[in-house]
Amino acid sequence: MSTSAIVTAAVLVIGDEILSGRTKDKNIGFIADYLTAIGIDLKEVRVVSDDEAAIIEAIDALRAKYTYVFTTGGIGPTHDDITADCIAKAFGVALPYHPEAVAILKERLAKTGGELNEARMRMARIPEGAALVVNKVSGAPGFWIGNVITMAGIPTVMQSMLDEVAPKLKTGTKMMSETIRADLKEGDVGTPLGEIAKANPDAIIGSYPFFDEKLGPNTNIVVRSRDPQKLQVVKGAVENMIAKVKSQLAAG
Amino acid sequence: MSTSAIVTAAVLVIGDEILSGRTKDKNIGFIADYLTAIGIDLKEVRVVSDDEAAIIEAIDALRAKYTYVFTTGGIGPTHDDITADCIAKAFGVALPYHPEAVAILKERLAKTGGELNEARMRMARIPEGAALVVNKVSGAPGFWIGNVITMAGIPTVMQSMLDEVAPKLKTGTKMMSETIRADLKEGDVGTPLGEIAKANPDAIIGSYPFFDEKLGPNTNIVVRSRDPQKLQVVKGAVENMIAKVKSQLAAG
Repeated sequence: MSTSAIVTAAVLVIGDEILSGRTKDKNIGFIADYLTAIGIDLKEVRVVSDDEAAIIEAIDALRAKYTYVFTTGGIGPTHDDITADCIAKAFGVALPYHPEAVAILKERLAKTGGELNEARMRMARIPEGAALVVNKVSGAPGFWIGNVITMAGIPTVMQSMLDEVAPKLKTGTKMMSETIRADLKEGDVGTPLGEIAKANPDAIIGSYPFFDEKLGPNTNIVVRSRDPQKLQVVKGAVENMIAKVKSQLAAG
Repeated sequence: MSTSAIVTAAVLVIGDEILSGRTKDKNIGFIADYLTAIGIDLKEVRVVSDDEAAIIEAIDALRAKYTYVFTTGGIGPTHDDITADCIAKAFGVALPYHPEAVAILKERLAKTGGELNEARMRMARIPEGAALVVNKVSGAPGFWIGNVITMAGIPTVMQSMLDEVAPKLKTGTKMMSETIRADLKEGDVGTPLGEIAKANPDAIIGSYPFFDEKLGPNTNIVVRSRDPQKLQVVKGAVENMIAKVKSQLAAG
């Protein structure tokens, strides 16, 4: 694992079932947490349907922009699994049967039963030049070509694939965060918080309203920085601001 | 509500907190279900950070492509709420205080307490020419300009805003679906299912593996069409295929 200042990523979720609402995505939030924890900034997510033009356009847009692109979905054995085809086309490479992938499927089927038919062989088609991503859950591998990492859509399988690739990813200086509960309404901290944000352009300050059962409308303020000292300075400024607003409201 | 054959939409989720993993999005799945139910095809979702260039680029790409764009997030009172600014810039219009929005905020604050300060006034800035989208939950309105509908990120507020705009949306012929549980492994139905898909290019056929506690690896096949007759024909073809595969495997 090598380290540079900022490493970025995008997630591309592929599947009609997410867009129709039939399946609720569970991968975006998991990958977001995972990448944040290892020091990769997730900058964009897209969800597209099982449509070749839409998938290729998204792959090309995202791989040009970010350090890594993680795709989920569309690598199963059926006709609507077209992710491998689209990535091969995007990279302008062939999509041959990968001997190691074929061997993995054969070994798996020897255990579970079932025939290595045309449909299952689809899962052994890997874009030329790609490395396999081992799937410890159900056998059929993902793959990694250029800066694009293609994983399954089933959450348990995707998660195990992410564990496989994580040690090989470049990572950046981790973004750290502090959450400060204001016990104030967002509208009461907005103006002074904006001043703190303006004075500290190198920290990221977010404000998240929530409803507290006892106190009513409330606010969490999240300060983020890659510099631990900066983080503490801005956290202190936010805490002082909160104390000041509270005493002003009390003096009312 | 007027009807044409196909009406499309995209969702744009705006917020660092989704990309950092801090907040798990609950809006995409809800909007997907909602739009499918009223006859609008959700074709794409994007999640971008609180970054002006990223938001404007996504807005412009999506509004050129789809009938509607629904945005969620970034319309609160703090400095990181920049959605209104970005939409005004994308449309090339000013972002003045909207008298009706100001009146709504005043009325709300008269009930809940709190000062109509600079921060809260941010929520009354509405792109010139936009219509307000009433917020029955917490007051501060969303807005609708061109084909872009801007809603809050908080799920309860977003949902009430969607209820407000739904009766005014163009909708298309509803996509209907039938789910057929195969009780077969996906790899065993893949080849014949592909043939059915090829013979019925006007129906959408999806295959979704799942794990059954008793039977092990299993498959749901989902057939979708706007034509109820077509839907039944393809459903029948899938059911026949499943029966045939089962008898082949039993004989096998």
